[in-house]
Amino acid sequence: MAPSRALEQVGLPTPSAVIQPLDEQDLKALQQVGRHWNQALGPSLERLQALPVDPNLTRAPDAPRARGFSRFAPVVMFRPERPDELETTPAAIEPVSRVGRLLTGAKRVVIGPPLRSSAIVQERLRKLVALPVLASDLFASVAYGPESMLAILVVAGTSGLALSLPLAGVLVVLMLVVGVSYMQTISAYPTGAGSYIVAGDNLGERAGLTAAVGLLADYVLNVAVSVATGIAAITSAIPSLRPYTVVLGLGMIGLLLAGNLRGVREAGKLFAAPTYIFLFAMGLLICAGFAQAAGRGFAATPPPPIEPVEGLTLLLVLRAFASGSTSMTGIEAVANAVPSFEPPEAKNARTTMAWMIGILVTIFAGQMVLLHLDGIAWSPRETLLSQLAHTTFGNGVLYGFIQAATALMLLFAANTSYNAFPRLLYYMARSEHAPRSFLQLGDRLAFSNGIVLLTVASAAVFAGFHGNLHALIPLFAVGVFLAVTLSQAGMVVHWWRNGGRHWRRNLAVNGAGALLTAIVVVVAGAGKFTEGAWVVVVGIPLLIWLCLRIRAHYRSVHDALLLRPLPDEISQRNGAAAQDERIAAPTSRERQESPEQFEHLMLVPVERLDLANLRALAYAASLDQPLLAVHLSPDEEEAERFRDQWEAWAVPLRLELVHSPYRALVAPLAHYIEMLQAQRPEVTTTVVLAELVARRPWHRLLHGRLAPALRRALRAQPNIVITTVPVHVPG
Amino acid sequence: MAPSRALEQVGLPTPSAVIQPLDEQDLKALQQVGRHWNQALGPSLERLQALPVDPNLTRAPDAPRARGFSRFAPVVMFRPERPDELETTPAAIEPVSRVGRLLTGAKRVVIGPPLRSSAIVQERLRKLVALPVLASDLFASVAYGPESMLAILVVAGTSGLALSLPLAGVLVVLMLVVGVSYMQTISAYPTGAGSYIVAGDNLGERAGLTAAVGLLADYVLNVAVSVATGIAAITSAIPSLRPYTVVLGLGMIGLLLAGNLRGVREAGKLFAAPTYIFLFAMGLLICAGFAQAAGRGFAATPPPPIEPVEGLTLLLVLRAFASGSTSMTGIEAVANAVPSFEPPEAKNARTTMAWMIGILVTIFAGQMVLLHLDGIAWSPRETLLSQLAHTTFGNGVLYGFIQAATALMLLFAANTSYNAFPRLLYYMARSEHAPRSFLQLGDRLAFSNGIVLLTVASAAVFAGFHGNLHALIPLFAVGVFLAVTLSQAGMVVHWWRNGGRHWRRNLAVNGAGALLTAIVVVVAGAGKFTEGAWVVVVGIPLLIWLCLRIRAHYRSVHDALLLRPLPDEISQRNGAAAQDERIAAPTSRERQESPEQFEHLMLVPVERLDLANLRALAYAASLDQPLLAVHLSPDEEEAERFRDQWEAWAVPLRLELVHSPYRALVAPLAHYIEMLQAQRPEVTTTVVLAELVARRPWHRLLHGRLAPALRRALRAQPNIVITTVPVHVPG
Repeated sequence: MAPSRALEQVGLPTPSAVIQPLDEQDLKALQQVGRHWNQALGPSLERLQALPVDPNLTRAPDAPRARGFSRFAPVVMFRPERPDELETTPAAIEPVSRVGRLLTGAKRVVIGPPLRSSAIVQERLRKLVALPVLASDLFASVAYGPESMLAILVVAGTSGLALSLPLAGVLVVLMLVVGVSYMQTISAYPTGAGSYIVAGDNLGERAGLTAAVGLLADYVLNVAVSVATGIAAITSAIPSLRPYTVVLGLGMIGLLLAGNLRGVREAGKLFAAPTYIFLFAMGLLICAGFAQAAGRGFAATPPPPIEPVEGLTLLLVLRAFASGSTSMTGIEAVANAVPSFEPPEAKNARTTMAWMIGILVTIFAGQMVLLHLDGIAWSPRETLLSQLAHTTFGNGVLYGFIQAATALMLLFAANTSYNAFPRLLYYMARSEHAPRSFLQLGDRLAFSNGIVLLTVASAAVFAGFHGNLHALIPLFAVGVFLAVTLSQAGMVVHWWRNGGRHWRRNLAVNGAGALLTAIVVVVAGAGKFTEGAWVVVVGIPLLIWLCLRIRAHYRSVHDALLLRPLPDEISQRNGAAAQDERIAAPTSRERQESPEQFEHLMLVPVERLDLANLRALAYAASLDQPLLAVHLSPDEEEAERFRDQWEAWAVPLRLELVHSPYRALVAPLAHYIEMLQAQRPEVTTTVVLAELVARRPWHRLLHGRLAPALRRALRAQPNIVITTVPVHVPG
Repeated sequence: MAPSRALEQVGLPTPSAVIQPLDEQDLKALQQVGRHWNQALGPSLERLQALPVDPNLTRAPDAPRARGFSRFAPVVMFRPERPDELETTPAAIEPVSRVGRLLTGAKRVVIGPPLRSSAIVQERLRKLVALPVLASDLFASVAYGPESMLAILVVAGTSGLALSLPLAGVLVVLMLVVGVSYMQTISAYPTGAGSYIVAGDNLGERAGLTAAVGLLADYVLNVAVSVATGIAAITSAIPSLRPYTVVLGLGMIGLLLAGNLRGVREAGKLFAAPTYIFLFAMGLLICAGFAQAAGRGFAATPPPPIEPVEGLTLLLVLRAFASGSTSMTGIEAVANAVPSFEPPEAKNARTTMAWMIGILVTIFAGQMVLLHLDGIAWSPRETLLSQLAHTTFGNGVLYGFIQAATALMLLFAANTSYNAFPRLLYYMARSEHAPRSFLQLGDRLAFSNGIVLLTVASAAVFAGFHGNLHALIPLFAVGVFLAVTLSQAGMVVHWWRNGGRHWRRNLAVNGAGALLTAIVVVVAGAGKFTEGAWVVVVGIPLLIWLCLRIRAHYRSVHDALLLRPLPDEISQRNGAAAQDERIAAPTSRERQESPEQFEHLMLVPVERLDLANLRALAYAASLDQPLLAVHLSPDEEEAERFRDQWEAWAVPLRLELVHSPYRALVAPLAHYIEMLQAQRPEVTTTVVLAELVARRPWHRLLHGRLAPALRRALRAQPNIVITTVPVHVPG
């Protein structure tokens, strides 16, 4: 009956998250307000119920033809299981204009036909699809992590490089600790184990936001860095493409956009191949390397002697460790995406996490050991991976395959961000830390708004840095380790508070993880501060402040829109007494929740007495409420002319003639209305405006635009309702 | 009492021209409609008259303070002579936003404080001001007319140049004939003697439009050409400014814009000096030249012998004549501007015209005779005027003065267009050939819209041609002579039809003028066709077509908005019978002129049951008309949740629940409403929308924009009224 309820219970995004359920108290207020309405409306309810048309459309022709001004496609509506409700067909979401329909057609070709909300349960990740979707970022990291670690160690010469294996060992321990730690987190938070939720839950709102904002920044940077690395690999192979770096990168980002708008599962399919090819290439390289090493009895070739530039200080070692730890950026992706897995979600996510860590450690450790065995030293001219492939395979087809697979992997590593960024924004929007529009699911049940925002942000960063990798790298990795640290610190608190089986062991694992990653954050942030990390260090607090402001706004709107039950007695008195009561009561403006609280004034600005203005007057008069016509005259002559017409018409409605000797219309009218409201703020003034609607857009230039201008001017004034009575004029 | 009525009688633009008076038949229809209303409203009139506020503001505090969302400046309203009417103070036209107020402040500094409509009578031209305002174009023409004539004659060598005096004689005759001809026209059309009116009156709509469009094109070109010539004169003197030609020209056009927005009279003051300096310089040059010639007994110095390049053909002579006739472009300015003169308008205009022609002939003839006496031949290296000044004054201060005065004059010749262009558009708009917005008088009682359009068009032409004079000249002069020809041909018809004193003589004068100027049009259009005149020849019919389409649209709107008196009996029957009658009668949609013709359906889209949506529901319910609430659900889960809330509220209003499985809101809702309307097209559906209004613009990003989107989507559908119930939310 309601598949999405089940989904929501496991924390999966559903279309209905946009509208939140009422709590017990709200519901009680609603019931009281309803009782009050029924008393207030009394006998007039019958009039309100007597509809001139059949809302259930049973009387309607099956498909009314579009005619006159209508631009809507004829849509057949049919009734689903409940006979008193309606359902729209896909044609009902086609845009109304011809240009819009063309654009939509193009969109359909790129991202596919729209999916029904009920299809959401199908859009889950199988483990073999989840691996490439969620881990491509992590796997791609091993292509630059060891590289950047050895680039620092080499400064201390041969004695520095000798530390690479011990440091790699520490990193492997870190990977295992963080991996196990995340698996524990998934078990503890099976409905979504992201740092935002875990840190927010255990350490408070600001810690959660810090983690979230750090991750958001890193996702944007990951897209820019991955695309920049991938494009750099391509342009090294084909140097003539170098001038088009930015264009190629933006094209790649566009491709990611389109692929991800197609939806989670299709994006998985699209991006599975590069990941598996890369894994195959790495497996091949490591196996062949070890086979060769076994051939010579695992005797390590000594690296060429390198003169130290600096001494081997502790700071240098720490910086190398921090840089090496970029090999594990992207490790948090699975934990954020638990609800996207096929059920049983937590179990599948844990299994995938275990695979990921296993593969990561294998590739990373294998690579480091082979580098040691083959005596390969870091060189600014050739990447370590390329040197390794050269040593192992010479210069042939297999070398080319390794390089191509690496480039492809890097290019598609950006996709992990496309998965994680919108999902994180969804969770933030659900907690009102981000605009509500990030809750909406697009045509293909993907978070289109988040995907588009990520595309815009990363394209701006990429183009802003002209696709230059070296400028981007220092900004990277602070955010993600900040989030990982907070998440694990949160888990420490969680175990401390809640206990549970093996809580001491779990606490120790998470505590060790938190400590290690905290060191990485401090070292990375401080070590790279002047190289660009300051942007992130300054930017994160600003974004947190923005998120807090957004939440504050939503909270105050929520409070303002809370229902406030009215005393049931008011409407039981007779009219006059009730009215006095109402005026005396401290009813603030715009707090009317019930029909009898409205006291109306219909105000009709009349330009001249033609059909359009008379129609507006007649509409207002037909509602049987006090009516005031207002005319603005630019000069005495025109005032006289209008007065004559009004007297010829001779309907004794109240007319106010306002002279506007400076010929302005909107501002004086708005001010006049404000002065009326100053007399009785509790009166609701309905401004009834005639609006000529011409069929062709260029014809609109031939008519005044009073209605929109007045609507804008009166927007800020409380208790003013704007009613537009259109009069459609022919060609 | 009504000064502008007197103004209108003499044809002067008034602010009230925007709203045209009703004719006899319209007034009768209005009276009948009014009688019908009174019958239809009957006893409910009393309810409509019982206003909850005092519209005359006598109960209001003198100056209500701005508060809450209000951004309006507090304005004191006071009552003029009629005690029952109001008048706005200048503060009431201040814009509502802070940015707007800053911009307005800047505008006030440039163009001065706004003027009251009643100040329009003061903004008239005295003759001595009219001369520079209206004749600067004409006087500047003699700086390039002789030049371009002799440039063609020189091709035929010395024998060609010998024709310069005879051709100048013919041109003087042409000037006198056209001048006298225009003076006759002014007498015959004292309320505006422009070509548009005279040709339209006598030769029909299309002839009038042809003249008008020709003039409009030439006014734009005149600005571009004059500014280009003036800037060229400056950059010849200071060559380092040459790269800034376009910027300088646009700056000059901006100066003209600001000067003219200040209003007619101030513009006259601003631009009087250059004209009078130029006239003084020309007088000095001619007097000194003749004095020197008298000293040598008026013996003509023979010009240097020049070898002919071509033979002296009739075509060459005609082309030279056509080019020479550019000396009199701008001659029609006074006739267009008759109503701008101080009363007696026609007499003052005639006198000014006579002065203008006298001065023109004196300068032109004097210059031509002196060129002959001094034996000066055309040279591509130095202008004739410069050669003449050199010969007369040598190389001293006086030479510099003559050159500077000429450059200044050329630069300010553009101002004539600024006077004539908006005025012509006003006349066209009054006849519905141009958008109605050209009827509006700006803050300073100048036609701001026309002035801005001229600025934009001429700046675009100037920048498009990179300020290159030689590319612009061939486009020039066709339009103006087309207009002069049509105007004079119109006068021929006028005399033929209406007779009057000396009609034969008048007809002969205008006929001769028409014939001569027609020759100029043909020669200029054909001779310069391939050099660029084709743009004008093709463009003019297109613009005429556009003007005719504009008029056709206004006509059809006017017909659509005509009142159609209703039979008085309908409302005398009882309700039910009247309703049957109304349904049976062929009442087309949106033709309701009277309150009882409206049958209402209030349709309230409800997103959730919070205060904002309840307020919209309560507003709609308080109007006591049939009410239908509609809810759109993105999925089954959400539908169920809303159903529960609605049932908890328990007010038995009609709710229609529409499932929108593709999560779109606007298009399905619009289509649903269309399907309701298909059942009973005569029912007026009022869509009542709650709209959250946030105080800060960035907060608006945090809320959905359903109301504006729905308004756009429903715009095209007939008989749908949109009511926006705002709910202002805090910070």
